[in-house]
Amino acid sequence: MDQTRYQIGIEQLRKIDGVGGEKVIESLKTIAPDLGNYIIEFAFGDIYPRPGLTLAERELITITSLLTAGGCEPQLEVHINGALNVGILPEKIIETFIQCIPYTGFPKVLNAVAVAKKVFADRDALPHDQPAPGKR
Amino acid sequence: MDQTRYQIGIEQLRKIDGVGGEKVIESLKTIAPDLGNYIIEFAFGDIYPRPGLTLAERELITITSLLTAGGCEPQLEVHINGALNVGILPEKIIETFIQCIPYTGFPKVLNAVAVAKKVFADRDALPHDQPAPGKR
Amino acid sequence: MDQTRYQIGIEQLRKIDGVGGEKVIESLKTIAPDLGNYIIEFAFGDIYPRPGLTLAERELITITSLLTAGGCEPQLEVHINGALNVGILPEKIIETFIQCIPYTGFPKVLNAVAVAKKVFADRDALPHDQPAPGKR
Amino acid sequence: MDQTRYQIGIEQLRKIDGVGGEKVIESLKTIAPDLGNYIIEFAFGDIYPRPGLTLAERELITITSLLTAGGCEPQLEVHINGALNVGILPEKIIETFIQCIPYTGFPKVLNAVAVAKKVFADRDALPHDQPAPGKR
Amino acid sequence: MDQTRYQIGIEQLRKIDGVGGEKVIESLKTIAPDLGNYIIEFAFGDIYPRPGLTLAERELITITSLLTAGGCEPQLEVHINGALNVGILPEKIIETFIQCIPYTGFPKVLNAVAVAKKVFADRDALPHDQPAPGKR
Amino acid sequence: MDQTRYQIGIEQLRKIDGVGGEKVIESLKTIAPDLGNYIIEFAFGDIYPRPGLTLAERELITITSLLTAGGCEPQLEVHINGALNVGILPEKIIETFIQCIPYTGFPKVLNAVAVAKKVFADRDALPHDQPAPGKR
Repeated sequence: MDQTRYQIGIEQLRKIDGVGGEKVIESLKTIAPDLGNYIIEFAFGDIYPRPGLTLAERELITITSLLTAGGCEPQLEVHINGALNVGILPEKIIETFIQCIPYTGFPKVLNAVAVAKKVFADRDALPHDQPAPGKR
Repeated sequence: MDQTRYQIGIEQLRKIDGVGGEKVIESLKTIAPDLGNYIIEFAFGDIYPRPGLTLAERELITITSLLTAGGCEPQLEVHINGALNVGILPEKIIETFIQCIPYTGFPKVLNAVAVAKKVFADRDALPHDQPAPGKR
Repeated sequence: MDQTRYQIGIEQLRKIDGVGGEKVIESLKTIAPDLGNYIIEFAFGDIYPRPGLTLAERELITITSLLTAGGCEPQLEVHINGALNVGILPEKIIETFIQCIPYTGFPKVLNAVAVAKKVFADRDALPHDQPAPGKR
Repeated sequence: MDQTRYQIGIEQLRKIDGVGGEKVIESLKTIAPDLGNYIIEFAFGDIYPRPGLTLAERELITITSLLTAGGCEPQLEVHINGALNVGILPEKIIETFIQCIPYTGFPKVLNAVAVAKKVFADRDALPHDQPAPGKR
Repeated sequence: MDQTRYQIGIEQLRKIDGVGGEKVIESLKTIAPDLGNYIIEFAFGDIYPRPGLTLAERELITITSLLTAGGCEPQLEVHINGALNVGILPEKIIETFIQCIPYTGFPKVLNAVAVAKKVFADRDALPHDQPAPGKR
Repeated sequence: MDQTRYQIGIEQLRKIDGVGGEKVIESLKTIAPDLGNYIIEFAFGDIYPRPGLTLAERELITITSLLTAGGCEPQLEVHINGALNVGILPEKIIETFIQCIPYTGFPKVLNAVAVAKKVFADRDALPHDQPAPGKR
């Protein structure tokens, strides 16, 4: 194992995805441990600590990519938690999903909002309402 | 036509996508003019001027969504230009694409980088090299 | 809020998706109320009442798009109900899914048929068997 | 080869996709002739001649599925021609694409309209403008 | 019904997908029996018995396609069982999913591994650990 | 740079994708050199040299994943060349694409076959016809 990349990665994973991320790695131990290692070494060891984007920007990009891909609800749950963990407010997460409507259509946005609703409820972190400009 | 939403939208479109955005709307005039109106009224009139995200954040989200969807190279070209227009540096656009690798795989990132390369060349705006941490 | 578009939209939504559609909007109230408004104003207020296609044709197109996108089972459930609500027979819904096989492959069609089976059972509306030409 | 299915299929293919469909089959002769046979026997021999949907409805479903899948521009070109061949008016094809906006987002609709624009121009068949309700 | 294609197909289906495959066909009887027939006649009667690839190679290709498509977890469950039925070892199935990481990203691979974990547990067939070269 | 992973990766890349792969890396030098490094280090340095699958199996899996993802024609061109380079016969590549029909539908298979036709012509490597069982 590449100790440095692994060490950097596991620290990033803990900082960003917290318990949820470690659970994913743990669940891979008996079935595909190398997959867990690649997530730590490559995704969190190589990519996340790069300069050029803040962690908050990286999480905005990640949840956008997962929403758009579709069918990634489990990973979206981990990374909505990750977005909250790095300080993104719930209303900004919702706003990110709303920005995707013109590019993905409503169904994928509805699926992502449903995951966010569950995550926010679990953490008791409801977004403050952000009315559209000129509304109500 | 909903004059206020249209007026807000066309201004946003001009600010963000500039000539490229107007060309898209223009090209729809003889074939599907309402489609152009919806893009202006809904995408740029309703969604873009909302509070909660900066224009730069909205463009990061948009190019991420287009990269992830795949097959949206013409729209990616418009919005890479849009990202540059709202002040995002070329190296940050590339870094956004690199952040997508763990979530979309390499092929879609390669396709997006190829579009960026063309856009940057057209505008004579090459990114400054951003080496990964601990590299070179 | 744009009263006219909203009023037209909410009537369309009630006519087409009935209880299922209103439940989706209701579920968004505490988390992303603007998303619900956009669905009403844009999808059902702007797009559905347009001339050029019957409501039944619009629902055929919608369930086809949701089947093909994949991962949109909750929305497919709402719109299979919507298709029945605007008078499409169960066997025509199944036939629509069968027409998609050459373009999407079997897995997405199987997923859509599984949703239809549940919806038809909930409404006690089983399709009449439509044997292929020259079969049995 | 299954003569009956092949015979039914080749007739359907000629009726629906005309020259464009035969060109696709022809182009497969030297590289993957069985693929051409399956398209004729299964897609056009088994699926298209089924009862329960008109040919026009089948083409609406097909172009919707191809638009939603994305990256299927060559097939979309064949089937927009097919839709015109079975009597669907250009403005109805455009309206079908507009109905997809809420479910696929704008980029895929823009790609499909660009293909339609080319096909209509090749056939000198421009759609009559269909303004949205309450517009202009 | 085309007796020969159906007979060949049902035998292939039983050999490859076993109980899981027959359950899928059975579940279609009351809702879309022709869909079941097409799966048997076309997928298993026309495609699977072709020369040029072994059954094991066909199952590797199938689980790769299902992983990449996304949202096909029910079909992936049937075909991971199918892969085991035609003699592919659990560790080779996992290795196939790992080979997809560079092309699909991690989320779809994680979803596929989660299905495999369930299938392997149901059959008491845990993969032997295959450490990456130069690791541990 | 991680010399060992890079060295292993560049050798694999040369063996598998040959000139086409090196061209991709070369084209990234001025725009996103780290992306090229990650392809070499992670895709070709970490994943390809793993035990458990032959190189030929890895290329079958790769072209299947690229076909299914859609919109990856440039990468498909590189990896159809890669498949030929590691000894897969043209007719086996075509057969792999045909095996995907039931899972992806015809359009994506047609797109992949069109790329293969071009690659085979460039290399003067036409597949030997493989008639389906019981045909002609």
